[in-house]
Amino acid sequence: MSRFFSVKFADHVAYVPGEQPREQKYIKLNTNENPFPPSPLAQQLARQAAGDLALYPDPHCTELTRAACEKWGVAANEIIFGNSSDVVLSWLFIAFCDHEHVPVFADVTYGFYPVFASFNGLTPKVIPLQKDLTIRPEDYYNAGGTVFIVNPNADVGLALTVQQVADIVEHNPDNVVVIDEAYVDFGAETVLPLIHKYPNLAVTRTFSKSYSMAGARLGCVMADEGLIGDLQVVKNSINPYSVNRMSMAAGQGALLDEEYFEANRQKIMENRAYTIQALKDLGFATTNSLGNFVPFKSDRIHSKELFGKLKEEGILVRFFSEGPWGDYNRVSIGSREEMETFIRAVQKIMEASR
Amino acid sequence: MSRFFSVKFADHVAYVPGEQPREQKYIKLNTNENPFPPSPLAQQLARQAAGDLALYPDPHCTELTRAACEKWGVAANEIIFGNSSDVVLSWLFIAFCDHEHVPVFADVTYGFYPVFASFNGLTPKVIPLQKDLTIRPEDYYNAGGTVFIVNPNADVGLALTVQQVADIVEHNPDNVVVIDEAYVDFGAETVLPLIHKYPNLAVTRTFSKSYSMAGARLGCVMADEGLIGDLQVVKNSINPYSVNRMSMAAGQGALLDEEYFEANRQKIMENRAYTIQALKDLGFATTNSLGNFVPFKSDRIHSKELFGKLKEEGILVRFFSEGPWGDYNRVSIGSREEMETFIRAVQKIMEASR
Repeated sequence: MSRFFSVKFADHVAYVPGEQPREQKYIKLNTNENPFPPSPLAQQLARQAAGDLALYPDPHCTELTRAACEKWGVAANEIIFGNSSDVVLSWLFIAFCDHEHVPVFADVTYGFYPVFASFNGLTPKVIPLQKDLTIRPEDYYNAGGTVFIVNPNADVGLALTVQQVADIVEHNPDNVVVIDEAYVDFGAETVLPLIHKYPNLAVTRTFSKSYSMAGARLGCVMADEGLIGDLQVVKNSINPYSVNRMSMAAGQGALLDEEYFEANRQKIMENRAYTIQALKDLGFATTNSLGNFVPFKSDRIHSKELFGKLKEEGILVRFFSEGPWGDYNRVSIGSREEMETFIRAVQKIMEASR
Repeated sequence: MSRFFSVKFADHVAYVPGEQPREQKYIKLNTNENPFPPSPLAQQLARQAAGDLALYPDPHCTELTRAACEKWGVAANEIIFGNSSDVVLSWLFIAFCDHEHVPVFADVTYGFYPVFASFNGLTPKVIPLQKDLTIRPEDYYNAGGTVFIVNPNADVGLALTVQQVADIVEHNPDNVVVIDEAYVDFGAETVLPLIHKYPNLAVTRTFSKSYSMAGARLGCVMADEGLIGDLQVVKNSINPYSVNRMSMAAGQGALLDEEYFEANRQKIMENRAYTIQALKDLGFATTNSLGNFVPFKSDRIHSKELFGKLKEEGILVRFFSEGPWGDYNRVSIGSREEMETFIRAVQKIMEASR
């Protein structure tokens, strides 16, 4: 930290992204990426846009917005796009959190939430998960701040029902409730239709997971036009042209190619079912995750040790050491071949550690 | 503004970007874009990257950084990239401005600076340009805050010398001085070598102007590793993967293609010389702008009226109504054909208004 850095960051700790090795020697199952390429149409539109970069992009993302409205059943003034869901989440923290409305989130959730809170000079209200790793809706009633829930939840993969979310929103008439649906396309039920009913509900989406576009950086918020108008002010105070021409075109292509999208997410769900069953067969505790990832742990090996041994085997997973479960690893769902290699490696490590 | 928007923004006004008409009926000379496409190598690398979007981008922008270090003579720990120079400027405001270090900038400068200040809850110290539209270096000595200077200056196009900037930096040992070199490649002298001498100097660059990549959103800051380390904390508190894979590849290609870059900026400078002379011949006051734009005004026609009549002729320029010059228009430098069409339109309007 230089002597010029604002004192407001004296105690702030930034996010540490998952390892992004530049060598190709690892099977990379550590940051919840999708093993399949984006839709051919997404790639084609992005390539076309790459020949057309001299002018600023359309700040309203008109064509992309049209495709999204068509697919998701929202109006153009109920959606706003940014350069990743991290960025639109940062806008939500800026727009709707302050000392009178601190962020409220679970102790096991997206690791960026505590960073966003601290970065905005706020001490969040952190609510523990229950012993079964679920969120208890009543814990979020009259939250006394702005609620952020990943649904299905990060790392754990368990989801609230639409009714449970509606109950939380109804019990927070003066608070904004943000439902981060990064992983919703892998089997959970979306709460999106509720934005037409509740002016205080915001739903975020990313193109990094079910659309295989982590490298393009594209995300959005959908909400009542009131909240979207506020977020537009924030966007226009940082970078009105947040989404570049290529990612905008890729997003449009990805949304239009419904068939590819369906096949992609089905494959992930199948590979997840295989992985959960195989881990259970090997004696691991896990969850019936609805994300493109599965948490796992065993009494027979320390999670950190297993993490290290998997890395030696050329497989990167993510190690976590917090929350009601204690230490555990999280494996992202890759291709069937990758998951079989992963399971074989786990099996080998467990046999060697007997 | 919804009732949920944080009260901290009660008086905040966002940036209003220049008109981006989606119809192609205008000759667009209003937002300082480059009329020429990016380097073929930039386009080629971007197209390749469009086929490789499933994984997150390299947060360290390693290849892009290598090309930049090679071209600009800086070390890898002296540069940081973001999703546009607007974004990296927003990081500078966040990192180095607070109530003890308010932003300090000219009354005629990049229109986003007042927005960044207000967005961070700060009242800037605004220093008037001199009557001749230049910045007086002494006005920025012991500035009592973080200095932001576009060099050559936005809208006006006039530049400080390297020695004048060095004097400002030396007279602000406890303040960060940011030199925004968005337009430096069109004829002004860069102050970049000074970052090796002064730990409190930061230089920003954009790929939107001389690299013809406004649609890709890419910018960077170069400074002593101390300041860059602070900016890395800010970046990692918003979006560690700020630069998507396609823009990263395009930027690398643009930096490597030195020949194309030279030809591009030479053409802009030639077209600028033509435009300035033609405007003077038509009786306009203008400046010897070193940017890819020229301000112009005439006693014989109100600037706002001229703006409207040019729009009727299918030519978009930008109207400004502040600062020591009062009302004026700014025309961005397009292709020779575009500038000739622009000059003919101005001539026609002036003849009709006699």
